[in-house]
Amino acid sequence: MTNLLPHHDGSDLYVSTQAPTLGDTVHVRVRVPQGYGPLAAVRTRSNPDHEPRWSEAALISSADGWDWWQAEIVVENPRHGYRFLFIHVDGSVTTLNQSGMHMGETLDAEDFAFVTTPAPPTWLNQAVMYQIFPDRFARSAQADTHETPEWAIPAAWDAPVDPVLPGRSQQFYGGDLDGIIEHLDHLENLGVTLLYLTPVFPAASNHRYDASSFLSVDPLLGGDDAYRRLIDAVHARGMRIIGDLTSNHSGDRHEWFRAAYGNPDAPESDFYYFTNADNTEYATWMGAQTLPKFNWASTELRRRFIEGEDSVVAHWLKQPFGIDGWRVDVANMTGRYGDIDLNADVRQTLLRTVQATNPDAILLGESTNDATSDLQGDAWHGAMTYPSFTRPVWGWLSAPAGTPWLSYDGEELTEPWFFTQPIGGIPRYTARDVATAMTRFTAGIPWRVRLGNMLPLDTHDTARFEQNAADGTMPLAVGLSLTVPGVPVVFAGDEFALTGADGESSRTPIPWGTESDPAIAERIALYRELIALRHAHPALQTGGMRFVHVDDEALVFVRESAAETMLVVASRGDLSVELDAVLLPGASHAQALFGDVTLATATDGSVLLEAEGPAFALWSLPGVRTA
Amino acid sequence: MTNLLPHHDGSDLYVSTQAPTLGDTVHVRVRVPQGYGPLAAVRTRSNPDHEPRWSEAALISSADGWDWWQAEIVVENPRHGYRFLFIHVDGSVTTLNQSGMHMGETLDAEDFAFVTTPAPPTWLNQAVMYQIFPDRFARSAQADTHETPEWAIPAAWDAPVDPVLPGRSQQFYGGDLDGIIEHLDHLENLGVTLLYLTPVFPAASNHRYDASSFLSVDPLLGGDDAYRRLIDAVHARGMRIIGDLTSNHSGDRHEWFRAAYGNPDAPESDFYYFTNADNTEYATWMGAQTLPKFNWASTELRRRFIEGEDSVVAHWLKQPFGIDGWRVDVANMTGRYGDIDLNADVRQTLLRTVQATNPDAILLGESTNDATSDLQGDAWHGAMTYPSFTRPVWGWLSAPAGTPWLSYDGEELTEPWFFTQPIGGIPRYTARDVATAMTRFTAGIPWRVRLGNMLPLDTHDTARFEQNAADGTMPLAVGLSLTVPGVPVVFAGDEFALTGADGESSRTPIPWGTESDPAIAERIALYRELIALRHAHPALQTGGMRFVHVDDEALVFVRESAAETMLVVASRGDLSVELDAVLLPGASHAQALFGDVTLATATDGSVLLEAEGPAFALWSLPGVRTA
Repeated sequence: MTNLLPHHDGSDLYVSTQAPTLGDTVHVRVRVPQGYGPLAAVRTRSNPDHEPRWSEAALISSADGWDWWQAEIVVENPRHGYRFLFIHVDGSVTTLNQSGMHMGETLDAEDFAFVTTPAPPTWLNQAVMYQIFPDRFARSAQADTHETPEWAIPAAWDAPVDPVLPGRSQQFYGGDLDGIIEHLDHLENLGVTLLYLTPVFPAASNHRYDASSFLSVDPLLGGDDAYRRLIDAVHARGMRIIGDLTSNHSGDRHEWFRAAYGNPDAPESDFYYFTNADNTEYATWMGAQTLPKFNWASTELRRRFIEGEDSVVAHWLKQPFGIDGWRVDVANMTGRYGDIDLNADVRQTLLRTVQATNPDAILLGESTNDATSDLQGDAWHGAMTYPSFTRPVWGWLSAPAGTPWLSYDGEELTEPWFFTQPIGGIPRYTARDVATAMTRFTAGIPWRVRLGNMLPLDTHDTARFEQNAADGTMPLAVGLSLTVPGVPVVFAGDEFALTGADGESSRTPIPWGTESDPAIAERIALYRELIALRHAHPALQTGGMRFVHVDDEALVFVRESAAETMLVVASRGDLSVELDAVLLPGASHAQALFGDVTLATATDGSVLLEAEGPAFALWSLPGVRTA
Repeated sequence: MTNLLPHHDGSDLYVSTQAPTLGDTVHVRVRVPQGYGPLAAVRTRSNPDHEPRWSEAALISSADGWDWWQAEIVVENPRHGYRFLFIHVDGSVTTLNQSGMHMGETLDAEDFAFVTTPAPPTWLNQAVMYQIFPDRFARSAQADTHETPEWAIPAAWDAPVDPVLPGRSQQFYGGDLDGIIEHLDHLENLGVTLLYLTPVFPAASNHRYDASSFLSVDPLLGGDDAYRRLIDAVHARGMRIIGDLTSNHSGDRHEWFRAAYGNPDAPESDFYYFTNADNTEYATWMGAQTLPKFNWASTELRRRFIEGEDSVVAHWLKQPFGIDGWRVDVANMTGRYGDIDLNADVRQTLLRTVQATNPDAILLGESTNDATSDLQGDAWHGAMTYPSFTRPVWGWLSAPAGTPWLSYDGEELTEPWFFTQPIGGIPRYTARDVATAMTRFTAGIPWRVRLGNMLPLDTHDTARFEQNAADGTMPLAVGLSLTVPGVPVVFAGDEFALTGADGESSRTPIPWGTESDPAIAERIALYRELIALRHAHPALQTGGMRFVHVDDEALVFVRESAAETMLVVASRGDLSVELDAVLLPGASHAQALFGDVTLATATDGSVLLEAEGPAFALWSLPGVRTA
């Protein structure tokens, strides 16, 4: 795969602002390798109000084998798409959009795009997120003072996770918020800057996605006071913390549902889709009777839950709590039910409330599959989504074909839980397939929103990546999660090399005290080192993304800014590849930062990369020269 | 390109109904070449409410080298997407969607899709459309009795078209509706079944897109009486007729605009986007002051124009007129203005009114570029759109590179008008590029809607295809327009081999009386013969679409049903290709219907196709055996 082709992405090298407003004129630039063409003209093609409009690009400068063309585009729609057209002297026309270079015309959906909603806070791009499942993270002494609730099946901290019902949702380890406070040193040491806690509301399960109220913190976690203490302690360290809301459904013990169930006259009656006159039958999440689905046509539900300063959404963002944003559960299904689709309205209302309450807060939506339709910049700052990163990396870096996938009880699985995909196991991806998937599932998402997408290797809903990782591939997986565009995510316990065959058994209590075990110490050091590099090199946070070489075994790409170019190499097999000098200007000044890959430059500037796989490596190169 | 791959499309061979309703269980089938795999399982993947759901396919039968797998899918959303997953024994997973076969996961937007809005009338699929620009079609004796209006520049019928302003819009030939009635024999003889007339409302231009009223027919065309006569005459011959509405804008002489202009208190004041307090400045179509843009937030505008039985839309569908539907101009921009997007609401309202007034009527929307976003089955039965057929065919079948594109005055164009694409000429497509474009721009459109898309070679907005056609390619172009999925369209005059360098000069008056000139007679015969084949072979109307061979020079595909398989070959260059027997079951029974391509079958069933290019040919083969 040659990559000596024109390039543009939405990063600062190529656009004059990340936060345009309607009517603004934005300068866009495209870099074209000298020798591409010859070209008669370079133009942009926008599509305001769904009708094409063109602007002429001018060749403004040249450097390091690249010509830089610049054009002006007036931003006319909240999502304003654009592409570049290359008019060749021979009469052919090629087009560059977010899915790459094409012959002929291209789809509007794959255009680059400006977004005019207020930009997310810059700290989102700088964040390294750490996901905590509160029952399993840490248990403070105070937790011993709580009475075990009637629904719970108490478990000792070192007892194995029971992934089968009823233990699956009722096995109760008793982690609490003060337990988190006690381990903030660990997180700060790791380099984490943003905590994401799965729900903390009172519930009748260990996962608490079946909240009985959204207006208090579960006393088993320490209640509102502990939450305030945690938030303050997090902020005191310069870190941030976000909560987890279920906008698709509540628990059937939720106060709103209890009020409405069997009571058609209750003010909460229209909060749900009751399907009989008695209000005893109702729509649910995927058939789970404990999770009744919200009906967002209800104005009272909106008022209480998501709209305005008295809403649940605002309540926790405001003092005395002051969390820094929300991750919204099952965002993809929210407001969607048969022939009803209120999703855009709900997510946009959520954003309005978040930004009115705290303009420095973030809003992320769970959308575990193709998130394109909902990620157009009108609401979510990013998504918790798997097809653009998590699943392709699994496909590539899992143990080789033939290795059985093991179940809870050690039996071979014929239909393992791979993120709810009944596809007979983890599909086999080459590195090329990874690049294809990354492109396919981000081509429809504006660059600014793509930068807010979460990059977990695993979560509380998946098996642990470690469970199936091929030998020696952890540095690749962790390294990619910290270098690909998006927000890196560590699921608590990943740094302890925890395993777990599915989204239940991955919820292992953290084995505190094992940090100095050699294997765990090495893993913690891996995270700490790579996270520190992410923090030290802003190009990894917001730099452009350009593949310079992809084959079946290796991904080689740069994250680029005017200040610095970060070169990233991930190779599962042995590597020996020679790259054209134009692809990597400044390679002779490369400064190795991580990994055992050899980089050598020839006198003609071409670059030789060699390693024994699996290998992951990172270099700092000079920033991109545009003139 | 091998095409021995699993296949599905939305046609009757593969789905149990074209008109499902919410909650229905639809049977879907996929055909898999024997030898593909080995497969552990075949599954469907739907995405109801944006959350994946699977169903298991069973191998139900085998015939002619194909295995047929069947699954059930419950239709849960108005647009219910689905795809097929092939779980291979070796652990790999492949996916079939509307863009073809893929490794790994695929985009929701490219799923096959059911549509639950009422299906369009079946006559739409059977139709061969004929587009008439009334001023230029035919002039009856009655036209001489009309006074020439003040805006008009009268032109003799054989005078050349003046494509430059003011002649461009004011040159007036005086064609009228009785002129059309007088030539219905010609249309019936050609095989046309559906007339599409550009606007017939009173206006101050020859194109009448600047209507002064939507409630009467221009007296210059014969007025309401002539329109009724025409509609009756058309219906008497078993043909149908649709009108043309501008939902994006009116003319600045329109009665609504005159009432509102300078009069902020007028009831029509909110019909437009006036931008100053005096109502003298306003939003327009593309900056044209004569075309003020409608503001669809106005409920009164909706009531008068598109909503309910007293609306303009209903007025002409009802007796005493009774037209058979509408083509809606600039449908893509309608209701879209900066941060406002009321398009979906407007188009859905249009459909409701059309169907309530006459369930047997059709609704087509103009969307000259990528129409995917608006063609999800919620409103338009199809689109007048160019990137999926018209422009690729131009790119492939135009004169060779180096041939200059000629302007009005015979000068070489450096920026010719290619459907408003300033791309320096007609880009060069190979046949492979044509197949790619056809796939790219239909992959996001449900099959049922795709069948309603118009397939013009040219229109009143483009140059004539003939103008740039390479020698001998007309049979390919006309043949493809009658065999590709969609509604064939003849722009009046195409059958007279008219030329025209752009969308203005293509509006040539029809040279009546030249029908027996040899070149024209041959062209008319070509249309008549191919249109007759379209009518005689329903597989060309609604049969599935499967490419069996594509290379740089040739497209070979079948349109298939249980009753018949139509084999289509279009080759610009010489052709010699051998096809696997499995690709073309029943080829030994092929019955040649058109063209000079040799089809020979070997004893092993493989098929040899040979011809001197350019060539277009058509055969009838036995229907598809599924068991």
